[in-house]
Amino acid sequence: MQKGKASLCLEHPAYIIGMASVAGKKEGEGPIGSGIDVVEQDPMFGADNWEQAESAMQKQAADLALEKGDIHRRDIRYLFAGDLLGQLIATSFGTVDLEIPLFGLYGACSTIGEALSLGAMCIDGNQADKVMAMASSHYATAEKQFRFPLGYGNQRPKCTTWTVTGCGALVLSGQGSEDQVKITGITTGRMVDMGAKDSMNMGAAMAPAAWDTIMQNFKDFGVDENWYDQIITGDLGEVGQKILLDFMKNEGHDLTGKHTDCGLHIYDNQKQDTHSGGSGCGCAAVTLCAWILPEMLKGTWKRVLFVPTGALLSTVSYNEGQSIPGIAHGVILERKKRS
Amino acid sequence: MQKGKASLCLEHPAYIIGMASVAGKKEGEGPIGSGIDVVEQDPMFGADNWEQAESAMQKQAADLALEKGDIHRRDIRYLFAGDLLGQLIATSFGTVDLEIPLFGLYGACSTIGEALSLGAMCIDGNQADKVMAMASSHYATAEKQFRFPLGYGNQRPKCTTWTVTGCGALVLSGQGSEDQVKITGITTGRMVDMGAKDSMNMGAAMAPAAWDTIMQNFKDFGVDENWYDQIITGDLGEVGQKILLDFMKNEGHDLTGKHTDCGLHIYDNQKQDTHSGGSGCGCAAVTLCAWILPEMLKGTWKRVLFVPTGALLSTVSYNEGQSIPGIAHGVILERKKRS
Repeated sequence: MQKGKASLCLEHPAYIIGMASVAGKKEGEGPIGSGIDVVEQDPMFGADNWEQAESAMQKQAADLALEKGDIHRRDIRYLFAGDLLGQLIATSFGTVDLEIPLFGLYGACSTIGEALSLGAMCIDGNQADKVMAMASSHYATAEKQFRFPLGYGNQRPKCTTWTVTGCGALVLSGQGSEDQVKITGITTGRMVDMGAKDSMNMGAAMAPAAWDTIMQNFKDFGVDENWYDQIITGDLGEVGQKILLDFMKNEGHDLTGKHTDCGLHIYDNQKQDTHSGGSGCGCAAVTLCAWILPEMLKGTWKRVLFVPTGALLSTVSYNEGQSIPGIAHGVILERKKRS
Repeated sequence: MQKGKASLCLEHPAYIIGMASVAGKKEGEGPIGSGIDVVEQDPMFGADNWEQAESAMQKQAADLALEKGDIHRRDIRYLFAGDLLGQLIATSFGTVDLEIPLFGLYGACSTIGEALSLGAMCIDGNQADKVMAMASSHYATAEKQFRFPLGYGNQRPKCTTWTVTGCGALVLSGQGSEDQVKITGITTGRMVDMGAKDSMNMGAAMAPAAWDTIMQNFKDFGVDENWYDQIITGDLGEVGQKILLDFMKNEGHDLTGKHTDCGLHIYDNQKQDTHSGGSGCGCAAVTLCAWILPEMLKGTWKRVLFVPTGALLSTVSYNEGQSIPGIAHGVILERKKRS
């Protein structure tokens, strides 16, 4: 059912019946490391280069999500997937062997939100029984593409985030039990450009988009922060979170204690030298599979607004003096009836 | 309704109620030039650089599609859009002002097929009343990203295609008249990698994907080439078409007279020195708006299988010695009942 300007309340919710996360050593050593299914010690994942490593991670996460959910590959009707790289290199090569019809997505670090939204719409519309949503990033492929070659060992400002080496894959189905977490609604983000121009400060570029999507969600559903047990953004980090909370407060919404960010959980920023926090498509995707959903299954939260955030940074447009627009996609996760 | 492995027969078809094409001078001088809504003589579209030029083209095509269809921007619920560039630069900046919730897509030159498929699914599932599908490419942004700086004036082998400077935008709606063309079914492609490694021969990289999707379409719907008045691929060009026809013949399907390719219509390859044909996201998108749909509206064809094709070429993976996988998305276009 269409809600307001940009949201859908799903008449047929999409149950999350399978999920898996694969990540690197650093992520494994972080606070949610014990929840990650596979922590690979070799950053090359046995491949010849970083891009192939990221593809290998996608393949592994997809296979594991199927295995954990006891689902056969041929039962997945569509795959909604993407990564951070130009021409979706990781996804292109990572999904060839799956032989599943693919919708390639680019939403920068918000990709898992875009994939879950489209996947859930597809389930809601009875156009598939089961679909997979997947997104990945790799520290080395992202640094190589967006910033400096790793060999330079350049110094990173304190406001930077650390791109997560990781992949999260989830299987959605129209059939499930009330014990499982389900997607009951979505709020689709639009491009938001407030003129941020610092490629080392992605949190500042994305916070306005997160604010825009959360406010739209409140408006479309006629709710506020009290309707949710937790609102969790993707990879704003410390810098971006502060901006979001300020923006929300200006609108009369105090999210203190109600908001957190995947980028603040995947690493211990103090101990792991990750500055403002984690980022990348893998940040929200891995944190969802390794921490948010497990917490919901434990009963910690019954209703979560999950808002992966993306910064449309491109070295081409950036070097041409353009700003960095952001986008954020909201996904409502629920488990059991709220008392 | 789900059909076979990868197809949907839409219970609620998506009517194409608005469409517009904007393209460059060379496209305007080609065989379908008179059908292009706006032929811009300035390849910079009044902007400061090629990327901004492509963004300007997207903005112009979107606005014109709305204007031609007498539709207000606020009535478009979702936008499904993409381009060829890393991080979807053209789309990111081209759609900011539209303020429409956006699903960013990357399907290389198949993007308009992916956008129309997802848009039609959204209409079919009653999740939107109206959506927009859009895709663009620009000769100069694409050459810069994928091949050589234009200033080099390098020689192009005969098998290369010429990236179209153009954008096509279409508005889909659940409400329409039988005089309008509607999308009645889709067949979603998967990644197909037959090991093509020549970045100057995109037709060869994509033909196997087109073959795979057309064969899947025939199987899923229980039909063959006779069910269609025409099967039109995206940008295989002369080289790719030959491969596709050979592959189809091997399966017992003679497409002679039944198949053509957008890349063979947008330019006069002999006179315009475009070698194997046109290519790029804009090739299929502009040809659809400027030629295929007008021909259907004139009554030339009643049922067309439109199959935009994409080659997942990346300079990074290519230079790492990887092959170039392809993908193709099938969209069934129909007008009035077939007698």
